[in-house]
Amino acid sequence: MPPASVAGRPSILEPMSVAQFPLERFYSVIPAGGVGSRLWPLSRADAPKFLHDLTGSGQTLLKDTWDRLAPLSGDQRIMVVTGRAHRAAVEAQLPGLADVNVVLESEPRDSTAAIGLAAAILERREPGVIIGSFAADHVISGEALFRQAVAQAFAAAEAGYIATIGITPTEPAVGFGYIECGAPLEIEGAEHAEAVSSFVEKPDLETAKAYLAGGKHLWNAGMFIARADELLAEIARNKPELHAGLVELAEAWDDPATRGPAVDRIWPKLEKIAIDYSVAEPAAAAGRLAVIRGHFAWDDVGDFASLAKLNTAGRSGELAILGENARVLADASSGIVVSRSNRVISLIGVHDIVVVDTPDALLVTTSEHAQRVKAVVDALRLGGSNDVL
Amino acid sequence: MPPASVAGRPSILEPMSVAQFPLERFYSVIPAGGVGSRLWPLSRADAPKFLHDLTGSGQTLLKDTWDRLAPLSGDQRIMVVTGRAHRAAVEAQLPGLADVNVVLESEPRDSTAAIGLAAAILERREPGVIIGSFAADHVISGEALFRQAVAQAFAAAEAGYIATIGITPTEPAVGFGYIECGAPLEIEGAEHAEAVSSFVEKPDLETAKAYLAGGKHLWNAGMFIARADELLAEIARNKPELHAGLVELAEAWDDPATRGPAVDRIWPKLEKIAIDYSVAEPAAAAGRLAVIRGHFAWDDVGDFASLAKLNTAGRSGELAILGENARVLADASSGIVVSRSNRVISLIGVHDIVVVDTPDALLVTTSEHAQRVKAVVDALRLGGSNDVL
Repeated sequence: MPPASVAGRPSILEPMSVAQFPLERFYSVIPAGGVGSRLWPLSRADAPKFLHDLTGSGQTLLKDTWDRLAPLSGDQRIMVVTGRAHRAAVEAQLPGLADVNVVLESEPRDSTAAIGLAAAILERREPGVIIGSFAADHVISGEALFRQAVAQAFAAAEAGYIATIGITPTEPAVGFGYIECGAPLEIEGAEHAEAVSSFVEKPDLETAKAYLAGGKHLWNAGMFIARADELLAEIARNKPELHAGLVELAEAWDDPATRGPAVDRIWPKLEKIAIDYSVAEPAAAAGRLAVIRGHFAWDDVGDFASLAKLNTAGRSGELAILGENARVLADASSGIVVSRSNRVISLIGVHDIVVVDTPDALLVTTSEHAQRVKAVVDALRLGGSNDVL
Repeated sequence: MPPASVAGRPSILEPMSVAQFPLERFYSVIPAGGVGSRLWPLSRADAPKFLHDLTGSGQTLLKDTWDRLAPLSGDQRIMVVTGRAHRAAVEAQLPGLADVNVVLESEPRDSTAAIGLAAAILERREPGVIIGSFAADHVISGEALFRQAVAQAFAAAEAGYIATIGITPTEPAVGFGYIECGAPLEIEGAEHAEAVSSFVEKPDLETAKAYLAGGKHLWNAGMFIARADELLAEIARNKPELHAGLVELAEAWDDPATRGPAVDRIWPKLEKIAIDYSVAEPAAAAGRLAVIRGHFAWDDVGDFASLAKLNTAGRSGELAILGENARVLADASSGIVVSRSNRVISLIGVHDIVVVDTPDALLVTTSEHAQRVKAVVDALRLGGSNDVL
């Protein structure tokens, strides 16, 4: 569905700058961190969401992300920031990933540390580099529209902005944060860039409906495109200690003799804070944040309701089945079955059901309660059932 | 709940004949045959319903049945008719079962063949024996009331009747057949015996409500108590060929040299017919059937709805959990979980749910659809999934 057209602004249908790919001076960064607790028992500490095929594409979300970014930056210019425990799995998924582009976290310190370290390392190696950070576990379709949006964001970044890509809402979603668009920015090569008035946390349904009708609010997809030095400067302004740690780490990074000790000394002390708070919100307040409207389909696959919707193309009454060797016999049932065992799964007369079958844990819930899965994971942890987390 | 009192008949609360246990000349027969398809994937061809603990008693329904009958007939006088495939399991469950009391079917031929063969063998060994046949996989509580009812049925059998025990309904059940009571029979020692007007198939809800209100209809629990010779005579009247086969088999039975060939020759050709049709209905029509009102709690555990009810004592909103090593984490859920694996099972916000978790098959349905499990089993068989049946 095309967005409501906004008076006085260029429409997506009008001619626009044609970008050359790969984008010069561009580097992709993939922070591959979160476990995806709401997708338990599919997602686990040792098998996080980005290592799963959640779309039936035949490959993991991480590999999908890689394939989407390779044309933008070239595959020698994609950096992955991930946990030490996932190194082998990530490298197996991404045979093209160069050693120098693997940044391993000794423990998770949230997205400012992950993306900020990548920015600091890359800026040191290649001053003036422009980075684009994209989650490892989101689902996107409409690759050409995605590339167009990144090219516009890239142009805004060249102009000194920190740029983000907001997704044009197609429904009044309550599971996403929103970006409120402000005035057009008139940036060369980024005709559609607008200022950001504010970031808004997940709204209630009434508010989400108003956002959808108003045409000024976009979904926050966590995509950030900026000159590495501008991004670091923004961190420095808002979180100077964190910035100092990142710069110190980056200086030690490319020498094997100094990296390990620096990581051990600095990383565990870095402040845990999402980049939305350390960079995006203050940059928006200071007029340094630009947003590009993305018209491609996007989902963060935040829970099983989202996964079900994604795999039934939103048609209620259908049953989605995920799993290579799934043996599912369903009668008058809808929702989603995720099969990670070779067991026969039989459903009779259950609607909007969520059944996730793994060798050591089974989840049965409904789309309506999909958000509550995280609470179950917390309860299992408290109860000492770490063997299945 | 005591039954509605019926004018002109002795109440259960009035003095009655006091039986001496074990009952003289009495032999218990346990046909242990049916798989219990509606309890798939718990019940299987190689693990039928009677080999499961469905009540949390800590032992199988078969052993519960044995323990219930041993005081009535003595444990040396209990015959079990079962499939060859179940011999080892049955003998392991019933260490007191004498070799001569094991009757093995080469293939299932329904209840007339099973009970009729037991009757013919026992009549030949002990002319004038009175047998009582009780399913291996029903659940009964109120043992003293059960024994009282059997003693009354025994007295009716001594008087030449084929006797059955009907269960006084406690609700308008649509899952059972009903027995309509007729006139009192005035049998010595069986003060409560009544003639049977008719057998009625499973009714609809309105009819079941009328039965409950009327006080003349009892649940058919498939219990038959009769002189073996009277039972055989009834079969002979209605199914002479089947009777001839049973008598011929019984004559060959106790000689190892003749049993095998006779079984091979005769058993596969015996008519498959339930004893309700070959014996009970015609005997009722001819005035030869007596019924005793049983006031004990009884259930045939015909499906998972019944199993759930049994294990929550009928309290809706509760979640029953069956399984020795069950690891179930449930939030705002009701129904039943049967765990036959050691997996963690998590339920969130699912009501009247039925989850049956076994190593090679999983069932998810609701109490409402519990009767449809059999159709799934049929579909799996047609689809060639015999490995999980």
